Amino acid sequence: MRDVAVIGIGVTKFGELWDKSFRQLTAEAGAKALLDSGVSGGDIDAMYIGSMSSGRFVGQEHIGALVADASGFSHLHIPATRVEGACASGGLAVRQGYLSIASGMNDVVVVGGIEKMNDVSGEAATETLATAADQEWESFFGVTFPGLYALMARRHMYEYGTTKKQLAEIAVKNHANGALNPNAQYQKPIKLETALNATIVADPLGLFDCSPVTDGAASIVLCAADKAKKFTDKAIKIIGSGQGSDTISLHGRDHICTLEATVYAAKKAYKQANVKPSDIDLAEVHDCFTIAEIIAIEDLGFVKKGEGGKAIENKITTLDGEIPINTSGGLKAKGHPVGATGVAQIVEIVEQLRGTADKRQVKNAKIGLAHNVGGSGATAVVHILEAM
Amino acid sequence: MRDVAVIGIGVTKFGELWDKSFRQLTAEAGAKALLDSGVSGGDIDAMYIGSMSSGRFVGQEHIGALVADASGFSHLHIPATRVEGACASGGLAVRQGYLSIASGMNDVVVVGGIEKMNDVSGEAATETLATAADQEWESFFGVTFPGLYALMARRHMYEYGTTKKQLAEIAVKNHANGALNPNAQYQKPIKLETALNATIVADPLGLFDCSPVTDGAASIVLCAADKAKKFTDKAIKIIGSGQGSDTISLHGRDHICTLEATVYAAKKAYKQANVKPSDIDLAEVHDCFTIAEIIAIEDLGFVKKGEGGKAIENKITTLDGEIPINTSGGLKAKGHPVGATGVAQIVEIVEQLRGTADKRQVKNAKIGLAHNVGGSGATAVVHILEAM
Repeated sequence: MRDVAVIGIGVTKFGELWDKSFRQLTAEAGAKALLDSGVSGGDIDAMYIGSMSSGRFVGQEHIGALVADASGFSHLHIPATRVEGACASGGLAVRQGYLSIASGMNDVVVVGGIEKMNDVSGEAATETLATAADQEWESFFGVTFPGLYALMARRHMYEYGTTKKQLAEIAVKNHANGALNPNAQYQKPIKLETALNATIVADPLGLFDCSPVTDGAASIVLCAADKAKKFTDKAIKIIGSGQGSDTISLHGRDHICTLEATVYAAKKAYKQANVKPSDIDLAEVHDCFTIAEIIAIEDLGFVKKGEGGKAIENKITTLDGEIPINTSGGLKAKGHPVGATGVAQIVEIVEQLRGTADKRQVKNAKIGLAHNVGGSGATAVVHILEAM
Repeated sequence: MRDVAVIGIGVTKFGELWDKSFRQLTAEAGAKALLDSGVSGGDIDAMYIGSMSSGRFVGQEHIGALVADASGFSHLHIPATRVEGACASGGLAVRQGYLSIASGMNDVVVVGGIEKMNDVSGEAATETLATAADQEWESFFGVTFPGLYALMARRHMYEYGTTKKQLAEIAVKNHANGALNPNAQYQKPIKLETALNATIVADPLGLFDCSPVTDGAASIVLCAADKAKKFTDKAIKIIGSGQGSDTISLHGRDHICTLEATVYAAKKAYKQANVKPSDIDLAEVHDCFTIAEIIAIEDLGFVKKGEGGKAIENKITTLDGEIPINTSGGLKAKGHPVGATGVAQIVEIVEQLRGTADKRQVKNAKIGLAHNVGGSGATAVVHILEAM
């Protein structure tokens, strides 16, 4: 298998984007990534687009072809494929693009992620997000995603003494990071009291424990590493890629304080990259809820199981901590356009490894990790990147 | 890149399957393919699932993980990814599985295709199918798929003198083939008069010019060709794989009697396989409407552009003709569970190349082709297979 590098990145503003269509958002992120990479249309061998539920959010399936078309490439007949794994759709698209170059089939691949979630009502958005859970055995009975993660949070509190204050501190950290990210949905810091005293969504999770409903798109350009120099001198190599699955319903698992899919995907990615958790300089992890960040940093091996809550108290995961987590603001503050998230995570890691993350820059960042989860953990994808 | 073979096939009955759930259908097709292949769960490196709109048809996204789980593999954490390209979703899943083995990443991959379309009303099914077209520029204005293909049919009649009787003869041929297929939705021959005098759906297309709304699933097991002997002695090699895209809206194209995506995908597949159209012994083509079969056999190079109508009159494409087309009954008679179709086409080609197609068997079938289209031609996938 060949080495693969990221040679271009692009992202739209995340937020409630009433004035931009689905088509416009994909084209904007793609154009930015292409400009950044030096690649032109004729160089592109394939496109992979991640989206969770464009069919329900905007009444449009078949978005691989739509995105290729909206990007002005219809005359090139570029193979364009959508991949879906709920909120891990973006990460899966990155992985498919990666595999297609590693195979020798393609040299240059554009990967996109997109979701436009605000064109439906809040209730419809919640129902659509619940299609990531088990429709017959969970969603049908009324469970929502805040409900599922609230179960995990309650159990984590019971097992390991994790506190509501620790959850709130994650929200505070991610809002502080988001305040430094010009593309984030929420660019203002919040106080601990604000998070702690917010309206309860699903006990023990309050409003600030939950990622928002977001419109946005992100794009990256991948290239065979040995051909990257033809286009750019700022390539970042993908040194590990792992993916795992688990039961789609939460009740099917032996325990709910660990996502086995994450553990499995991380193990594969670490092995391929030949690095240990302690070699990672920063990570973007899937904080769809604050409890999810705690479980993620444990499952990824940055701290021991049960010590994720203490990590935030001890400032290990802040911008200048031992292992900065979600420097972009994370899903919590940057926003969570579900299908775009996994691609946007790679964009942030690349910015950091290039040294162009401005006020969010982590010092001496050489190796970064991106962790993207679908549903309550039935799918997980982990990528490890390194400056070349 | 490594050679890849199909080592197992499985398909459910196609039809209105009120008594089986989405989950049951995927598990049934998968179990059949695994039994046929000799592969067990622990051998599987990855799964790719094609489905067009599970989110709208059955309220369930995230079906990669769901299918792995329903198949009893959740404890194995197998990477499971859904791919979507409207009615070409199945073909795209086959291609992703193929690429992931060719890359050296995986040895054994299960590919599934599934759609359960009858759980929603006829109107909702039509609206959901229209999400394969351009929502903003076509579907919003009321166009449906029979409408789009009727435009193509009318133009083909104008340009090349294609007749309504030729369209009807394709329906008659495909129903005759379907009558020999125990898994087909419609297993009875029809008369030319029945097709010609049927209710008009979108002029000039009548009821028998249109493929039906279908529930069903199909599955295949792919394996690195040099490892196939470990599992089976009836492997069939994939010798070519091509994929192309085009404008998603019909009005964006220079002409509407050719699908450029098909031409592009076929060119790539023929080149990789190092064969010519005349080397193909039989083909499953995407006859979502009778006119689509005429355009397909022209675009694939079996006959000259404009002579697709005459081919059926001259019996070139019947079971004992020069190039038998849609021996399974095609989408028309076998049924068209949209995400399953591209996988089911491979199942039929493998049956034929194994020599196990019973009453539908094509004599001396050595090389077969499968052609799967998304929407009105914005996506096309072509695979060429050969007996090993």
